[in-house]
Amino acid sequence: MRIIDGKAQNVKIAYIGGGSRGWAWNLMSDLATCPDMSGDVYLYDIDQDAAEDNRIIGNKYNDAEGTISQWNYFVGKTPKEALTGADFVVISILPGTFDEMESDIHAPEEYGIYQSVGDSSGPGGVVRAMRCIPMFEEIAGYIRDYCPTAWVINYTNPMTLCVRTLYRTFPQIRAFGCCHEVFGTQKLLMNCAKEKLGIEIEKRSLIKVNPVGVNHFTWLTRATYQNQDLFPLYRELAEEHRETGCTKWLDSNWMNNCFRCSHKVKFDLFLRYGSIAAAGDRHLAEFVDGDWYLKSPEHARNWGFSLTSIQWRRGSLEERLQKSRDLRSGALPITLKQSGEEGVAQMRAILGLGDPLVTNVNIPNVGQIPNLPLGAVVETNAVFSSNGVTPVMAGPIPKEIHSLIGRICAEQELVSEGVAERDLTKIFAAFAGDPLVTCGVEDARALFKKMVLNTKKYLTDYDLSTL
Amino acid sequence: MRIIDGKAQNVKIAYIGGGSRGWAWNLMSDLATCPDMSGDVYLYDIDQDAAEDNRIIGNKYNDAEGTISQWNYFVGKTPKEALTGADFVVISILPGTFDEMESDIHAPEEYGIYQSVGDSSGPGGVVRAMRCIPMFEEIAGYIRDYCPTAWVINYTNPMTLCVRTLYRTFPQIRAFGCCHEVFGTQKLLMNCAKEKLGIEIEKRSLIKVNPVGVNHFTWLTRATYQNQDLFPLYRELAEEHRETGCTKWLDSNWMNNCFRCSHKVKFDLFLRYGSIAAAGDRHLAEFVDGDWYLKSPEHARNWGFSLTSIQWRRGSLEERLQKSRDLRSGALPITLKQSGEEGVAQMRAILGLGDPLVTNVNIPNVGQIPNLPLGAVVETNAVFSSNGVTPVMAGPIPKEIHSLIGRICAEQELVSEGVAERDLTKIFAAFAGDPLVTCGVEDARALFKKMVLNTKKYLTDYDLSTL
Amino acid sequence: MRIIDGKAQNVKIAYIGGGSRGWAWNLMSDLATCPDMSGDVYLYDIDQDAAEDNRIIGNKYNDAEGTISQWNYFVGKTPKEALTGADFVVISILPGTFDEMESDIHAPEEYGIYQSVGDSSGPGGVVRAMRCIPMFEEIAGYIRDYCPTAWVINYTNPMTLCVRTLYRTFPQIRAFGCCHEVFGTQKLLMNCAKEKLGIEIEKRSLIKVNPVGVNHFTWLTRATYQNQDLFPLYRELAEEHRETGCTKWLDSNWMNNCFRCSHKVKFDLFLRYGSIAAAGDRHLAEFVDGDWYLKSPEHARNWGFSLTSIQWRRGSLEERLQKSRDLRSGALPITLKQSGEEGVAQMRAILGLGDPLVTNVNIPNVGQIPNLPLGAVVETNAVFSSNGVTPVMAGPIPKEIHSLIGRICAEQELVSEGVAERDLTKIFAAFAGDPLVTCGVEDARALFKKMVLNTKKYLTDYDLSTL
Amino acid sequence: MRIIDGKAQNVKIAYIGGGSRGWAWNLMSDLATCPDMSGDVYLYDIDQDAAEDNRIIGNKYNDAEGTISQWNYFVGKTPKEALTGADFVVISILPGTFDEMESDIHAPEEYGIYQSVGDSSGPGGVVRAMRCIPMFEEIAGYIRDYCPTAWVINYTNPMTLCVRTLYRTFPQIRAFGCCHEVFGTQKLLMNCAKEKLGIEIEKRSLIKVNPVGVNHFTWLTRATYQNQDLFPLYRELAEEHRETGCTKWLDSNWMNNCFRCSHKVKFDLFLRYGSIAAAGDRHLAEFVDGDWYLKSPEHARNWGFSLTSIQWRRGSLEERLQKSRDLRSGALPITLKQSGEEGVAQMRAILGLGDPLVTNVNIPNVGQIPNLPLGAVVETNAVFSSNGVTPVMAGPIPKEIHSLIGRICAEQELVSEGVAERDLTKIFAAFAGDPLVTCGVEDARALFKKMVLNTKKYLTDYDLSTL
Repeated sequence: MRIIDGKAQNVKIAYIGGGSRGWAWNLMSDLATCPDMSGDVYLYDIDQDAAEDNRIIGNKYNDAEGTISQWNYFVGKTPKEALTGADFVVISILPGTFDEMESDIHAPEEYGIYQSVGDSSGPGGVVRAMRCIPMFEEIAGYIRDYCPTAWVINYTNPMTLCVRTLYRTFPQIRAFGCCHEVFGTQKLLMNCAKEKLGIEIEKRSLIKVNPVGVNHFTWLTRATYQNQDLFPLYRELAEEHRETGCTKWLDSNWMNNCFRCSHKVKFDLFLRYGSIAAAGDRHLAEFVDGDWYLKSPEHARNWGFSLTSIQWRRGSLEERLQKSRDLRSGALPITLKQSGEEGVAQMRAILGLGDPLVTNVNIPNVGQIPNLPLGAVVETNAVFSSNGVTPVMAGPIPKEIHSLIGRICAEQELVSEGVAERDLTKIFAAFAGDPLVTCGVEDARALFKKMVLNTKKYLTDYDLSTL
Repeated sequence: MRIIDGKAQNVKIAYIGGGSRGWAWNLMSDLATCPDMSGDVYLYDIDQDAAEDNRIIGNKYNDAEGTISQWNYFVGKTPKEALTGADFVVISILPGTFDEMESDIHAPEEYGIYQSVGDSSGPGGVVRAMRCIPMFEEIAGYIRDYCPTAWVINYTNPMTLCVRTLYRTFPQIRAFGCCHEVFGTQKLLMNCAKEKLGIEIEKRSLIKVNPVGVNHFTWLTRATYQNQDLFPLYRELAEEHRETGCTKWLDSNWMNNCFRCSHKVKFDLFLRYGSIAAAGDRHLAEFVDGDWYLKSPEHARNWGFSLTSIQWRRGSLEERLQKSRDLRSGALPITLKQSGEEGVAQMRAILGLGDPLVTNVNIPNVGQIPNLPLGAVVETNAVFSSNGVTPVMAGPIPKEIHSLIGRICAEQELVSEGVAERDLTKIFAAFAGDPLVTCGVEDARALFKKMVLNTKKYLTDYDLSTL
Repeated sequence: MRIIDGKAQNVKIAYIGGGSRGWAWNLMSDLATCPDMSGDVYLYDIDQDAAEDNRIIGNKYNDAEGTISQWNYFVGKTPKEALTGADFVVISILPGTFDEMESDIHAPEEYGIYQSVGDSSGPGGVVRAMRCIPMFEEIAGYIRDYCPTAWVINYTNPMTLCVRTLYRTFPQIRAFGCCHEVFGTQKLLMNCAKEKLGIEIEKRSLIKVNPVGVNHFTWLTRATYQNQDLFPLYRELAEEHRETGCTKWLDSNWMNNCFRCSHKVKFDLFLRYGSIAAAGDRHLAEFVDGDWYLKSPEHARNWGFSLTSIQWRRGSLEERLQKSRDLRSGALPITLKQSGEEGVAQMRAILGLGDPLVTNVNIPNVGQIPNLPLGAVVETNAVFSSNGVTPVMAGPIPKEIHSLIGRICAEQELVSEGVAERDLTKIFAAFAGDPLVTCGVEDARALFKKMVLNTKKYLTDYDLSTL
Repeated sequence: MRIIDGKAQNVKIAYIGGGSRGWAWNLMSDLATCPDMSGDVYLYDIDQDAAEDNRIIGNKYNDAEGTISQWNYFVGKTPKEALTGADFVVISILPGTFDEMESDIHAPEEYGIYQSVGDSSGPGGVVRAMRCIPMFEEIAGYIRDYCPTAWVINYTNPMTLCVRTLYRTFPQIRAFGCCHEVFGTQKLLMNCAKEKLGIEIEKRSLIKVNPVGVNHFTWLTRATYQNQDLFPLYRELAEEHRETGCTKWLDSNWMNNCFRCSHKVKFDLFLRYGSIAAAGDRHLAEFVDGDWYLKSPEHARNWGFSLTSIQWRRGSLEERLQKSRDLRSGALPITLKQSGEEGVAQMRAILGLGDPLVTNVNIPNVGQIPNLPLGAVVETNAVFSSNGVTPVMAGPIPKEIHSLIGRICAEQELVSEGVAERDLTKIFAAFAGDPLVTCGVEDARALFKKMVLNTKKYLTDYDLSTL
């Protein structure tokens, strides 16, 4: 890579999981419209056909209307080929198949445990981590060997544990994890400010927030627009809609029925704790006692959100596979649109192209949240600039929510260590202590065994005989 | 006070709650047999008749067989009279009456929440704290005004929050909290070593342990006798008795049916987490998810322990009241016996009489447990010597149990702040998040309201209208 | 104040020390050219005539060519009048007169101690702090009483101790200290990059740096431009010019003979320690052993810098007084020019007008530098946005310079406490330990006494009898 | 080893540097009179003849009058033989010969730098560390390989850096460093209490102190006897003797002219800083600015202490060599006397024989001194018991002396890292910043080069070409 007259040329991006149907196209679109970067994208995927599809699709973006930046797409046949010389690495993989995910999400229902997502926390999140962490150990090893100074952006869940694994395996790695959940709350605040103050705010990033916590259980301790503290407005909103939820601003473009929520959980948590829980209700509900919002599908529905079933995911994938075929064949023309993700903006900022960017990110705690453990991966704002990615001092978790967040963070640290050591006792200790596991110790043990066996194809280096 | 030839004369001890039927007599006995201290004990109690009873009883100890140290007992009619000039202050009070305690313990049963003790944690512990903390604010104020350099020993529960309140109100106070729960585990280890190694250990204090945690939820991360690591022996014991419990060494002198336990909870926790939970099972069960060991009285019984009902407590008090009358009248003669408590030994050590004493104590965290919040009251070993009470570096809570303990510690910090500010929102946030409150948010709110109203006689400076 | 359509109206700025001849005009110029703020500036000064002069001059700015923003200037006759309702407070005062400053700078010469500035550290800095800190206690009290939520920008030296005092007196204050010394090093790096890489960099702020340390003894641990690490270039530069210094890029507009330096000290420190000392050599030399660069005026000259004498300062003031008269009378027309200071840009960013600003600032350490004491005022980058001023995690001071900086920081903490308590023993402990005080304990005591007595007019609430 | 009926049998002690003429005999005497340990002592020394001398002498102790414990002495011909199976390792070596030490101590005099000891700090301490640290890296490696769970007691100087190296090389090591300097101050306090209070205190260990700092620059923040705070008495003493020093209690048994001091430095430091500097004046003077107490030999003499010259050390060694010959031949009979050292008492306590022992020790900082860097080796009290060696929470260094101690601690961390990396730039950065190096940078560089070359025989794995 070189930067000439403010434009970065020959940037090499390696995309692990580059056969993705969805995220990959977002990235292609964002790259095509980036004014000051161009170069090569190497797609690596264990499904090489999928990577090949995306190679063909990616190259079509160069001819799309509105494209201002040329990127050459390649299939990286080996990690070595994909990663060597990379300036940036994007990781977005599915750890296992929908079969394992079906067990993650639905097996606990037998014990009265319902999960709305099942990929970050809860019994499903723990078992997914058992599969996923060894994969990230491998990826981190490749990065150490082939592109140790590359910047690594992870989108895979469980976000916290994926990023934690990258650092645990290769401490010098320059990795961070990105998640758009906070953006939704900024949009909610934007609408709230518009309604209450009558002002039109141009874009969500003008709402300045201070996120603290762990991914998908991130809370805002401050939110402002210009000289306006938005917390009093938000309190009004929450009080008005605590019973009914607030659906008036739902953006059906990015939310479908299955991801939709009415913010009742968010409002309830705000009125109880005084900080703004920043992820969507489906995520939030999974980090607190299962009896609060997830006793049953009906209970969730009363709280204004739905459970995302594996059946829905399978259907959605079918649609996306069809879209992939159509994009490849040309039946569906390439169209550019901004994804709303910040990955490309972050790359630009790291190269010093344009102003520093301040946004939320998942990286190890070096003190940005003084009352969470050092080394644990936390979510706060960070400054992206040519000096790298520097977290801001987000400050301590407020006392009201320290117990909630600290508990999750400690559980994740235990899962991280337990999986790193392939130690089922430690992993079960975390599993049984998860807030969603409301079924008692004996049942938890049975459930754990069942779920682990369901995913055992991916657990070849564990000793499962002690289950 | 003065120390002459290694003997402390004119020591003044103030006893807040000095009308106690039980603890007070233990203290009297220990003082009477202390070889190198003598002086005055001022009994202060809101029940002055009870204090007067104990004054009479106390003075009888001077004539008991085996008494080697003379102490004059007085009733302190006001806090000022009791405290002025005190070298030591002992606090052991009942916050409220058995009527309030009945609500603390039994009101939650309507929502399927059972408590084995109900005085430290759980819904009962939180509501008891609402009554108790204001009393300790008052006591701390008296100490600040009348004897700011006195050493203050607290025995009242909720231990953590009582000691926290003393320091919050008067940060220069020299206070600590004592609890004998760890002693029981030392005895268990002593018996275990005897069985497994065939060695006779003279006294429980020769078992060296490293406690970490919060009161009644204290864990041992090391336990040794001479050059012997006791953890492998304890693991054997736990594995042998995980199903049946271990009752063979029950000491019926100090345990009656109601306090008895078979260590099944302790063993289960050890096998899951690798550290030794050091309190009795009745306490331990209250700090973890209610579904684990406390789903119902039967469930508890299956785990080898019983719930201490208020009915039992009322009966026990009746017996102790009778004993008080008999001691006062002389119908029951005064007999000396070692209480097994360490209060008097601690006083001696603080005065530099004899060797330094290393034992467990509850004091604010100044770093002795690096991964719990600074300022929170924690339980670790400390050195008692003429240089004061200095905690040892107990080290971090092991990852396996960090989530369990950190959660409780954060909850207690929130209760402490919530009650200090008389802020029902904060208190309810803690209440609803307690591991025993397994009933969902809406029910938790109803239960909280009910329990608070049951104890409202003691909550005169709260604004209860927002309940 | 209100913000309408992205413009802040009716902003109130209070200027403590508003009679200044120099800084005040810089601020007026920057305000006049600020596109989106307007309002009132209240000038408060113990020299009310000087404030009146500036009021007249300030109002002339509204008619100057190029002015795009209207500001009304007033004399605030009392602190109350100046501060009540202020949105921003600027503090730039001279603590005492040039008579006291003469003693600060020159009295130590009798003992072989030479100071190049004498206002931040060294014997002069300590004694100046004795005068200055009580003034800042008073100012902090006014802010607490009249405008507790105002943002407070300090420019007065000793910077660290002034900001420390504001927070010690009124912990909720929203204050920070600004200093342009780091900017000079960014310019040096800009020139260096131009020479070595042949690239033209538009402005110094595009050089991204990570400052750590305390004011005037701030070091850069990273410096980059786009994807370019500037440390290797800087090492080349330092090695080339270690003997001769580097004067080729001296900007005579902002440096005159007396402030000029050739960066020999900076280069020497870099080659010894591996981090870039970021202040000018005159400042840097005062924070290390006096024998290193300040044995004598000749020694300093050999190191490529001069001592700023009080005589020069008196002359400079004369010129500025004349300029003041001419500006007031109109003999000298008002001209706008950018001051190079960032105060106004910081105000805009705090109001959320425009993008977040990342720049260096002096605020209490909340962990942004983990290996300096919490609470001490440190200099690092911070994000200015509508969410306030949030320091970034600058990271630990590198081991190589930890001893140098840690020593200064601890000394300043001791001065801060010593002056707050008016405790001459503590202050002398700091004085005698200062790196410039190379004269032995006995001489240090004599010197301290002399210097304190020279400034005693301002030390009315100290007990000087124990000197 | 096994413990039967409270007696440890077959204890194996490895003594690295076991050819010592002095310390070795102290240890032999203390072991011979230890009631409850017996076993084998393996003497390892690069001077095998010296080890053989001590083997013969050691075995004679078994027949000495008063011996109650049998120990068999062996020469360990290799580290492997000496260390394998060891329960305890004692390290007391001389890094290099008196020729190198002569340069360490006297070479700096050419630049006006005088050192009273020259083995811990100052230019001599730094260069000695350059020789010594590689030796300790080697020793730590042997311990890791041959006896990883042994307890390791170091007596070698520079104490801090030796212990630091053991932990840096083998983090799991169970090592600590012992030093008797604090004992002398306890004796001084004992005499002071006797004079001022008229009480006879049986032994120095009854004076309870709280040491903080780094070895040889340790300070007491509290000192008590029974209920008596000794600081006011000590202040009286210091004020009475600030001019004259206090020599009345000099114990000529353990002090000869060369080690003698009159405590004037200690008193001066107390009156300036309010804490009691606990090492002897010869050591203390080396940790502060050279201009304070060490401008010249006369200056030191005025402050009541002498410089220990290499000439004196050579003479002393001659005497000890003669003594060795006489002990070996039997010309001099073996006599038992208590050394005053605590090594054997510490071993007993670690084995759980007898009560826990609370005494000062040098180990890595895990928070016992919160305002010194974690990992640096610090001196505080610790509890020795069968649970190991646990530091107490000594608390933060007082503000008054934080700058003094923090500076030294940071310098030592830099030397440790610099030598570990064989990085002359880092080592020189520490050297030039040492408080005794008062000669300016250029001279410091020349001196460093000279001293390093003088010791180059021991620096075979450094690249000295860059000097």
